[in-house]
Amino acid sequence: MIGEIIAIGDELTSGRITNTTSGYAAQELFLLGHEILAMHTIGDAPELIGSTLKTALERADFVIVTGGLGATSDDLTNEAVVQALGLTTAVHPGVHANLNARLSRELQSGSISLAKLAQLPEGAEVLDDDCRMAGYLLRYNGKPIFFLPGVPPQMEILLHRKVLPGLRTFFPSQAPPVCQQIYRTCGLQEVAINRLLLPLEENRSLQVGYYPVGCEVHVSLTIPNLAHGMKDPLFLETDAFIRKALEHHLFGTGKETLASVTGQLLKSRGLVLGVAESCTGGLISSTITETAGSSQWFGGGVVVYSNQLKHLLLDIDPAFLAQHGAVSHETAQAMATQTAVRLQCDIAISATGVAGPDGGSAEKPVGTVYLGLSYRNRVIDQLCHFTGSRRQIQEKTTQTVLDLVRRALLEN
Amino acid sequence: MIGEIIAIGDELTSGRITNTTSGYAAQELFLLGHEILAMHTIGDAPELIGSTLKTALERADFVIVTGGLGATSDDLTNEAVVQALGLTTAVHPGVHANLNARLSRELQSGSISLAKLAQLPEGAEVLDDDCRMAGYLLRYNGKPIFFLPGVPPQMEILLHRKVLPGLRTFFPSQAPPVCQQIYRTCGLQEVAINRLLLPLEENRSLQVGYYPVGCEVHVSLTIPNLAHGMKDPLFLETDAFIRKALEHHLFGTGKETLASVTGQLLKSRGLVLGVAESCTGGLISSTITETAGSSQWFGGGVVVYSNQLKHLLLDIDPAFLAQHGAVSHETAQAMATQTAVRLQCDIAISATGVAGPDGGSAEKPVGTVYLGLSYRNRVIDQLCHFTGSRRQIQEKTTQTVLDLVRRALLEN
Repeated sequence: MIGEIIAIGDELTSGRITNTTSGYAAQELFLLGHEILAMHTIGDAPELIGSTLKTALERADFVIVTGGLGATSDDLTNEAVVQALGLTTAVHPGVHANLNARLSRELQSGSISLAKLAQLPEGAEVLDDDCRMAGYLLRYNGKPIFFLPGVPPQMEILLHRKVLPGLRTFFPSQAPPVCQQIYRTCGLQEVAINRLLLPLEENRSLQVGYYPVGCEVHVSLTIPNLAHGMKDPLFLETDAFIRKALEHHLFGTGKETLASVTGQLLKSRGLVLGVAESCTGGLISSTITETAGSSQWFGGGVVVYSNQLKHLLLDIDPAFLAQHGAVSHETAQAMATQTAVRLQCDIAISATGVAGPDGGSAEKPVGTVYLGLSYRNRVIDQLCHFTGSRRQIQEKTTQTVLDLVRRALLEN
Repeated sequence: MIGEIIAIGDELTSGRITNTTSGYAAQELFLLGHEILAMHTIGDAPELIGSTLKTALERADFVIVTGGLGATSDDLTNEAVVQALGLTTAVHPGVHANLNARLSRELQSGSISLAKLAQLPEGAEVLDDDCRMAGYLLRYNGKPIFFLPGVPPQMEILLHRKVLPGLRTFFPSQAPPVCQQIYRTCGLQEVAINRLLLPLEENRSLQVGYYPVGCEVHVSLTIPNLAHGMKDPLFLETDAFIRKALEHHLFGTGKETLASVTGQLLKSRGLVLGVAESCTGGLISSTITETAGSSQWFGGGVVVYSNQLKHLLLDIDPAFLAQHGAVSHETAQAMATQTAVRLQCDIAISATGVAGPDGGSAEKPVGTVYLGLSYRNRVIDQLCHFTGSRRQIQEKTTQTVLDLVRRALLEN
């Protein structure tokens, strides 16, 4: 079915807060086979809220509205809806009862008139079973309008619990879910991947998209109206073709990350990883430990930002650093080797470079990074030249060094 | 002046990519005194692009359109504009010449027809002086429409170089810039801050917003139509009131961060910080080193994720860990003390806790975190109970421990 999403709030139209809820909802809806015609972000302006909602109701099968449901004076969504659709408001008994239970405590919070929270458009079906979170369903000329809180975690809970199942009830005969797979690669540029996958463009029913994310390139394959989804021969053939074309550059699919995939490889081999970071300043370790369960294959690391700490923690001689420079393949190798020894880990990686914005030279400009890897009494290093901001260089370094581990494990 | 922003791309309406360009443009425009009436995100659908543009032109003084200007077959913005506004296309000589110069090289990239890039609506004024980046200005009934690339870095460059100065030329007599300040706090809840700033609500010309970001709460003060901006007595009085009310909970304004503010304090006192992380797994160090110039006050850190590394790197006895537990105030203190000694830094912080999703117990549930701080031969610790996802708990820990350093330095 076709939907539109309307996000409401002055904090969004003034750019103080980035609207992430609309995109989140769009993705979930898309994967269930719905099409999002348009997403609108508008301020707390009742007339515009009303006219946007009415236009959306004319061309879409369902509408999702987020934000503007709170208790403060700038929350005007209910007022706008009632005006635009010619409804009245009524006190919702469930919300009212819940508010009364909390009122004595919350009343102390000042100027907020909580009574407003129970004043909903007539016919509103509150979504939260406990009537604590704002949000309701309104049926208008048979079309569902879901009103959800603007706070992302609350919106996400109600979307999954109520909106997505609710849409299945409204539209039981909808098209089969869209068949989509994301292929995640590292080590090849977008244009090279495009060339490898060029034959796919001959088939008009395949939609292929390319999205560079630092040193990774994600390829999306979308096949609409596929009766058997991922079991359909067309998907299976295409999937096999892509996997063959991308070879070992393909590191994962869906929501897999370089850290999670590398972690699985380490875990299955019973290996523990250690990290020594200079220019990334902790980002490699931090990216690894974002993955739940990483303690099973990650021992820890050192952030040897200063030369003094390279000496104190890794026992790298100041004379050695003076001779070769902190940013050099010798130092990258020494950092990896010493990390393996000092941290008693099976495999150790290192990164030293110039993340910028200062510190670059003609010989070693900003973006020059040496990576090191120590594994089975062998140490290798790799010189990289990255572009972008300080943070982008740190991120590209992190991706590349994790990919280095992945490739080293696959080769063995 | 009043503007609307239209972002185009199937990758946006399917939620694969989050639209960040519209919010970025909105913020820059808002701070210059413009009002963004609405932002629309729509797919590569020519009819809808056209009707959205026409509606926007009816009610806004200017329109910004991003995306859909590329060379692939799904880039349809130019086609849509020409249809909707009744224009023809013409080959743009500058873009054409530039393409010819690059053509032989790029032709190898496959199915992409670059000639399309030079086919622009008649009257299009290309924005990039070198005619390399897509993007142009179109005047329609005297109103400017800026077409910009969907790629964020290119959009941002052209926005600053061409769109913002261009709007000043179009609307020389516009209202004075909006006077806005962001106050960043840590350590108080949103409702407590709301109570402290309640008197501001009496003045109708002040707009105050509250935005919790983990353990931080950001307060935005906006005063429209203020002739002298931040030199206006109304702003100065309000600013002084807010600073007094928030006291030491206010850590910075504008784009200052806890890391940058704490770093300035360390630098001005000539102190170097060291970090020992367990549950944050590198995020504290990574957050610190995101700040350019942090090498002047940050020596480095250890990510002692396993008990073995707490022993190897910080010399914390396994018997001590077995007795008190890795998540305890004794271990947090020991980690801070030993970091100060081992890393030879002036001030050391530590974090050990349960980030989840596993590892929690009845006594120490997920979100239990102990922080440690060692400074001037004194060590303190702090027990925190955080909620949220694994990553949110790591982020809140990072904010709180940096704030701990800031407060310790201010007290001394």
